[in-house]
Amino acid sequence: MMLRFLLPLVVLASCKESNKMAKAQYTVDSARASLVRQEDTIIFALIERARFPLNSPTYNQSYTSIPQFQGSLLDFVISNTEAMQSKAGRYINPEENPFIPTNLPPSVVPRYPFSQFLHPAAALINMNKEIWKLYFNELLPMFVASGDDGNYAQTAVTDLMLLQAISRRIHYGKFVAEAKFREAPQGYEPLIRGRDREALMKLLTSVRVEEMVVKRVEKKAMVFGQEVSLDHDVKGGTYKVDPSVVSLLYQKWLIPLTKTVESRRECRKIKTLNYNPSFVKRID
Amino acid sequence: MMLRFLLPLVVLASCKESNKMAKAQYTVDSARASLVRQEDTIIFALIERARFPLNSPTYNQSYTSIPQFQGSLLDFVISNTEAMQSKAGRYINPEENPFIPTNLPPSVVPRYPFSQFLHPAAALINMNKEIWKLYFNELLPMFVASGDDGNYAQTAVTDLMLLQAISRRIHYGKFVAEAKFREAPQGYEPLIRGRDREALMKLLTSVRVEEMVVKRVEKKAMVFGQEVSLDHDVKGGTYKVDPSVVSLLYQKWLIPLTKTVESRRECRKIKTLNYNPSFVKRID
Repeated sequence: MMLRFLLPLVVLASCKESNKMAKAQYTVDSARASLVRQEDTIIFALIERARFPLNSPTYNQSYTSIPQFQGSLLDFVISNTEAMQSKAGRYINPEENPFIPTNLPPSVVPRYPFSQFLHPAAALINMNKEIWKLYFNELLPMFVASGDDGNYAQTAVTDLMLLQAISRRIHYGKFVAEAKFREAPQGYEPLIRGRDREALMKLLTSVRVEEMVVKRVEKKAMVFGQEVSLDHDVKGGTYKVDPSVVSLLYQKWLIPLTKTVESRRECRKIKTLNYNPSFVKRID
Repeated sequence: MMLRFLLPLVVLASCKESNKMAKAQYTVDSARASLVRQEDTIIFALIERARFPLNSPTYNQSYTSIPQFQGSLLDFVISNTEAMQSKAGRYINPEENPFIPTNLPPSVVPRYPFSQFLHPAAALINMNKEIWKLYFNELLPMFVASGDDGNYAQTAVTDLMLLQAISRRIHYGKFVAEAKFREAPQGYEPLIRGRDREALMKLLTSVRVEEMVVKRVEKKAMVFGQEVSLDHDVKGGTYKVDPSVVSLLYQKWLIPLTKTVESRRECRKIKTLNYNPSFVKRID
């Protein structure tokens, strides 16, 4: 496409390290560091969605009548974006999970050797239906202004960016759980054998860490959502997204759903260990 | 698509103000406020692109061989995203300008009554070729790490988000110039009549404001790019994107290119005023 002849120059000039290599194995520490970095992405995406008012026609099926398409403008943007990004290889990375996986076209790019850290059964856990439901029914009305500025396509794009960031965070629980299990199998195996779901959730829970995460994301929402000027940092204590919404998002949904993913993964682990398949049905 | 039956509930429950109305007219003050808000979007997008290393296969035409497509993965992602977003109505808003306008499909959604603030000749100014060139040849190598983590689709998506934010800022010069002209036509008309390009650029320039913008974006890059923890704000003075790159981006490219757009718009204004069309050719 235009000016692409310039790109090889960029690549030659600046890419000193271009050999492909599988991503390093996940550890509890590296997974935690990733979750901390993902907080920034989620808060940036919240702030960017809040640039637009609700823009209800985006979600109203009767607003659009797109040839050969049934659904709202949001459905159109998300299904087409996911289909195109799937062709471009997005979902080869096991950290990514599509919202509309039905009839998703396969990747057409060479397969990158992503780390096969997860067991295939765990890789298939997809909670995006639940995430979609909570996002549109509960979260969105909490932080966007009412109104209509006509930017429906951009609104759908920012919804998708935020949904993808939230989904990635929640599904990261698979990697956290696998890393925790590998680093201390002696702690998890007896509980899985003993079908002790309560103790398993307790082992997966660190109240101290969770409280710290909730406080930190609230602080991040204040820092990233403030109006920065040269005279002062905070202008009248107003933020682009209410920090209490961000802490609630983590406290009520992100942390519990990440743990649900973690416990589902632990339970699916049983299949690979051949402990007792009936247990899986009971608590998964 | 999935769970869309829930959306009318959201819309009914939370949208108290859903009547369509054309966006208010632009003023110099409202345009400035928008430019300040756009700084946050640009810096968030820089930080999000910096999550990934260079990922050179994204830009390498020989990496992909996509059926019925000629170009790199970046070309594939950008041309398909723009085509889909064009159908969804993105480019009906005169603040948006596509990077690959050739054969862009028309919008298939009802036409929203965006303010027709710009003259049609000004609306057609599109500097995205120049922006594309500076982005890939100069800016990108300055702020991304070398390396390859396989996330090529995500890399192309974050490139596009950043390109769109930069493009929107630069093309906003059209609205700034129109607002300046309407608020003080007596200052601009003699200069346009007299073909005094130097004086015109001087009138469009406020050294004090420009210096303030450069300092402010550097500060914003520090605030938004810091590692926020509960103990302190800045962790060892490291930032996700070097703040000096952000100030350079504004000083070297964004402010001058916005002014180029402003002066082009002023020159095209001459056509509508029937002053002297030859002047347009000379300085446009």
